Amino acid sequence: MAASSPRPRAVCLVSGGMDSAVALAEARAAGFETYALTVRYGQRHVAELEAARRVARALGAAEQREVAVELGPLAASALTSASAVPKDRDPARMAAEIPATYVPARNTVLLALALAWAETLGARDLFLGVNAVDYSGYPDCRPEFLRAFEGLAALATAAGTEQGARFRVHAPLLALTKRDIVLRAEALEVDLALTHTCYDPVEQNGRWLACGRCDACVLRLKGFREAGRSDPLPYAR
Amino acid sequence: MAASSPRPRAVCLVSGGMDSAVALAEARAAGFETYALTVRYGQRHVAELEAARRVARALGAAEQREVAVELGPLAASALTSASAVPKDRDPARMAAEIPATYVPARNTVLLALALAWAETLGARDLFLGVNAVDYSGYPDCRPEFLRAFEGLAALATAAGTEQGARFRVHAPLLALTKRDIVLRAEALEVDLALTHTCYDPVEQNGRWLACGRCDACVLRLKGFREAGRSDPLPYAR
Repeated sequence: MAASSPRPRAVCLVSGGMDSAVALAEARAAGFETYALTVRYGQRHVAELEAARRVARALGAAEQREVAVELGPLAASALTSASAVPKDRDPARMAAEIPATYVPARNTVLLALALAWAETLGARDLFLGVNAVDYSGYPDCRPEFLRAFEGLAALATAAGTEQGARFRVHAPLLALTKRDIVLRAEALEVDLALTHTCYDPVEQNGRWLACGRCDACVLRLKGFREAGRSDPLPYAR
Repeated sequence: MAASSPRPRAVCLVSGGMDSAVALAEARAAGFETYALTVRYGQRHVAELEAARRVARALGAAEQREVAVELGPLAASALTSASAVPKDRDPARMAAEIPATYVPARNTVLLALALAWAETLGARDLFLGVNAVDYSGYPDCRPEFLRAFEGLAALATAAGTEQGARFRVHAPLLALTKRDIVLRAEALEVDLALTHTCYDPVEQNGRWLACGRCDACVLRLKGFREAGRSDPLPYAR
């Protein structure tokens, strides 16, 4: 990955899911040297962390770091607590309400951590994989939230006090559906078999099978179906 | 601490230092039921965490929680790494530059965590102890940063999407010097012997002695001197 002229750096939030994998690929395609940040905030499954490492390596990140933050004690959410993950929900219903998997202030925390690393690295660009589906349910996926964070970042940092310095929050998937993301992954040569999406996977012979029924699986499978592609991941049913 | 009518809740960032102790006391004096949040982000000394617990208990917080966040791997700073803490610096010089103890995006991360708990608690008020001395050196202590965070919080949360909901970031010490804070602590009956300030304390017979020479000690001692009070803490010299 040696470059003859230095590329600008970008910090990319990489969860292990297909959205952040495509966002990382977009950052690389846009000419950035990418730094993959994986935040452990009490997810139940190491499957996601393993996927994040695979994705960062496969997509040529200059470095990947994992940091832990204890959101669990502060948040009530199916993603970080023992309460049940909803299954077999209708996508239209998911879009109409704030999901049970919503983690309070999650993207604020994730972007704040990305900003800390960006300031250390001298990066001015942050990438995250929020998209149109997230946007409908999660308040902190809205474009106005992302613009507000850019304004905050300029005020929050030593770098921001320099003349003309500004931070940009890139959400290249914001206007995309899951169908679009599947097709975009194909165009960018992102191997979606490396990614992990399921909130509630089961282990079988040392590999993870997606449940196929949680909100995340339902949306992923719908995306593949609408794109006319088949999901390379193994499913439990 | 039973109340006949429910008081509004406030999340107060409590580090164990005297500034956040006074901010917590201000929240209580303003009629809030307080929830003390102590964030462990790689500080070197348990002395600070012990002080935070003492302060929260003494000032009647309804609850205190500690959460850990790994800022160390993302930040280069004397507070979270092994590099030397500066000693015997002139306060005027401290004020003129961004200090070595600056942690990139620290207050953004702290406020994001406070916001997560606030949303869970149904609180709309956040308190933190940034003050005039901090403000001169740390970019993320500026009033415009705090206002920007309020704007972000409204967009970042499910609560913020409710009609008329807004978050307020209270920094009651913002315009105060350390001298003012010492006198304000006295007025609010905050026992500053419970607090811990030093970046580099030494243990002696099971208690912590402040070094008296790091930036934090120098500013604290100057504040007491200018207030005409003596610091109840034990010092190594």
